[in-house]
Amino acid sequence: MKVAVMGYGTIGSGVVEVLRINKEKIARRAGQEVDVKYILDLRDFPGDPMEDAIIHDYKTIVEDPEIGIVVETMGGVEPAYTFVKAMLEAGKSVATSNKNLVAAKGAELIAVAREHGVNFQFEASVGGGIPIIRPLNKCLTADEIEEITGILNGTTNYMLTKMADEGADFDEVLKDAQDKGYAEKDPTADIEGHDPCRKIAILTSLVCGKQVDFEDIHCEGITKITAADFLYAKKMDRSIKLLASSRQEGDSYSCMVAPFMLPTTHPLCNVNDVFNGIFVHGNVLGDAMFYGSGAGKLPTASAVVADIVDMVKHINTNIFIDWSSEKMELLDYKASQNAFFVRTTSSKAEVEAVFGNVSYVEAVVEGEMGFTTEKMTEADFEERSAKIAVVNRIRLA
Amino acid sequence: MKVAVMGYGTIGSGVVEVLRINKEKIARRAGQEVDVKYILDLRDFPGDPMEDAIIHDYKTIVEDPEIGIVVETMGGVEPAYTFVKAMLEAGKSVATSNKNLVAAKGAELIAVAREHGVNFQFEASVGGGIPIIRPLNKCLTADEIEEITGILNGTTNYMLTKMADEGADFDEVLKDAQDKGYAEKDPTADIEGHDPCRKIAILTSLVCGKQVDFEDIHCEGITKITAADFLYAKKMDRSIKLLASSRQEGDSYSCMVAPFMLPTTHPLCNVNDVFNGIFVHGNVLGDAMFYGSGAGKLPTASAVVADIVDMVKHINTNIFIDWSSEKMELLDYKASQNAFFVRTTSSKAEVEAVFGNVSYVEAVVEGEMGFTTEKMTEADFEERSAKIAVVNRIRLA
Repeated sequence: MKVAVMGYGTIGSGVVEVLRINKEKIARRAGQEVDVKYILDLRDFPGDPMEDAIIHDYKTIVEDPEIGIVVETMGGVEPAYTFVKAMLEAGKSVATSNKNLVAAKGAELIAVAREHGVNFQFEASVGGGIPIIRPLNKCLTADEIEEITGILNGTTNYMLTKMADEGADFDEVLKDAQDKGYAEKDPTADIEGHDPCRKIAILTSLVCGKQVDFEDIHCEGITKITAADFLYAKKMDRSIKLLASSRQEGDSYSCMVAPFMLPTTHPLCNVNDVFNGIFVHGNVLGDAMFYGSGAGKLPTASAVVADIVDMVKHINTNIFIDWSSEKMELLDYKASQNAFFVRTTSSKAEVEAVFGNVSYVEAVVEGEMGFTTEKMTEADFEERSAKIAVVNRIRLA
Repeated sequence: MKVAVMGYGTIGSGVVEVLRINKEKIARRAGQEVDVKYILDLRDFPGDPMEDAIIHDYKTIVEDPEIGIVVETMGGVEPAYTFVKAMLEAGKSVATSNKNLVAAKGAELIAVAREHGVNFQFEASVGGGIPIIRPLNKCLTADEIEEITGILNGTTNYMLTKMADEGADFDEVLKDAQDKGYAEKDPTADIEGHDPCRKIAILTSLVCGKQVDFEDIHCEGITKITAADFLYAKKMDRSIKLLASSRQEGDSYSCMVAPFMLPTTHPLCNVNDVFNGIFVHGNVLGDAMFYGSGAGKLPTASAVVADIVDMVKHINTNIFIDWSSEKMELLDYKASQNAFFVRTTSSKAEVEAVFGNVSYVEAVVEGEMGFTTEKMTEADFEERSAKIAVVNRIRLA
């Protein structure tokens, strides 16, 4: 089997490396050898061992009947979308690690693959190396999945872990994450939660079989989290994690991306550093969790190559993925219920006049105090909290 | 699709229940409705809603061409083996939750299924509801799996969690586990580690593609663990878990079942109560963990029904499982390296004469002391520890 890799960046070069390192094992599992024939990139790579495979025109791949499988690791919606669609229409299966592409065009590309009797797979688009897409499609098939809650972004989890462990403040850990190469120069997609938002949209689409648009999901990042918030969390035996969650309610789903305070006994609370964890609740399975490297060159490439192996074994068979382009109307997040931790400079009398009975948390900053509310709707909380002076508020999980 | 269930105990009745509760969802995923036509059991079930489906002769199933899939939830090797083999030879696929059968006859039944173009699947035989067999076969296909370490027995994990939380002693928590129905009247298979031993044999067979005999695996249970051991563990910021582990070393594997002291930061340390956790290390994936209900009626049935769905979708296609009957010769556990925590009534001078520099742990029992060793071979530890008075010893993870 000859494959082409589109995009020779971190993940793309990782795919080439994994195919080389585990060549024999992969051939045994796929039933035949898997070789990289082309690498599509804008750049040249003089001196690279794969130099001779580098090409610059995607049509070279489209027009080569020897290529059965194409890997897309370019990132972004365009030109990835144009290239991938052309590959599928030319009868080539495609594996991608590109969450932006999958969130925006997943349903359409799955349909195109089906029409042409090939496959479009995207295990690496969520949770890096953690198997989660295939488990949802192939393993948890006896269940109604009622909830998925995940730590789906390694960069922000690294930052929050460092804030928790070292008492550091946001700007400091962001700089550290950028120095270490975990965060990009423009860190918006991570720290504002756009990345986990696309990932939970993908997972929810797979659970409900319809198109969940990430633009419909309420999304808060971690930019407002401070060192003081972690001191309060510690006093409550909790930590702060950026959670992406999706809960079935009736015929629809309630989705959100936001920082939450988790009790230290919660399975996701011990998912630290760049690791990801995905908690799943099925109506008969109960609770399950998948944990592992949510990013990184080789772990992510491992997931891409697992897609390649699966597609080699199903080279003339479309594997059904239940994700149609019919839109799933999500519930308004303002109707969802949450309990909150609140820091305020208002008095106890003012707080109690608005929230009734609350539980106070010992102050860690002079001139303010902390308290936790009962569960209430987001709309209700918004209305009430506008009546007091709020320094910060974080939801409780 | 008509299925037959052999064994109407906890898991078997769970399978019938899951097929009923999630009937529509399962039909959608399998591509057709799945109905239970027969239930094979020695007993009658007067008044049971499935009363009319009860039969007593397995040949009724063998001879009915309408039955495409058979579920085996009887437990034990015989007569399960005879029945399952007859079903496969009659061209029916079989899903089982029976670890004893799979550990003893897995390779053979996989081969029989292949010969007859049907499938033999056993997701529920390890880790209850946790997807682990299919992830190993279908998801982690790009990796060389270098290590699997699991908490694979819910009963003993419940007992050890209770000992850790409540300071209770072994006999007390065993009685409690029996009262709650978690432990059987004869708890040997659980507390002596025979159950997780079979499970790690199954997982190692799948990783190496050869037959790993559970009889070859060194196996220690939890019967020697006391309340005092947990006090020592706490002082070391550790807890005690019964681990089943398998590590690739050269062309072979080193396997063991034994209680270990884990640091509280270890992902498996937070796997509590009846939950199971399976930690996997792949050479490119790095660390991953699968967590969930390791036992229980509905979670285990969820895994069996996932096998049914997969087999309905592959009704005339054998899904390759890489597990031949060629025997894998395991490494002698005495050559494996471990560090130990030791309780002794010998003096520091005596300890140091034998073990050299050790780290002492503050005594929690009068007249003794605790210390930890460096890593050494099991043989070396055995020889040295015979020279001092050992109260108990537990390996460190």
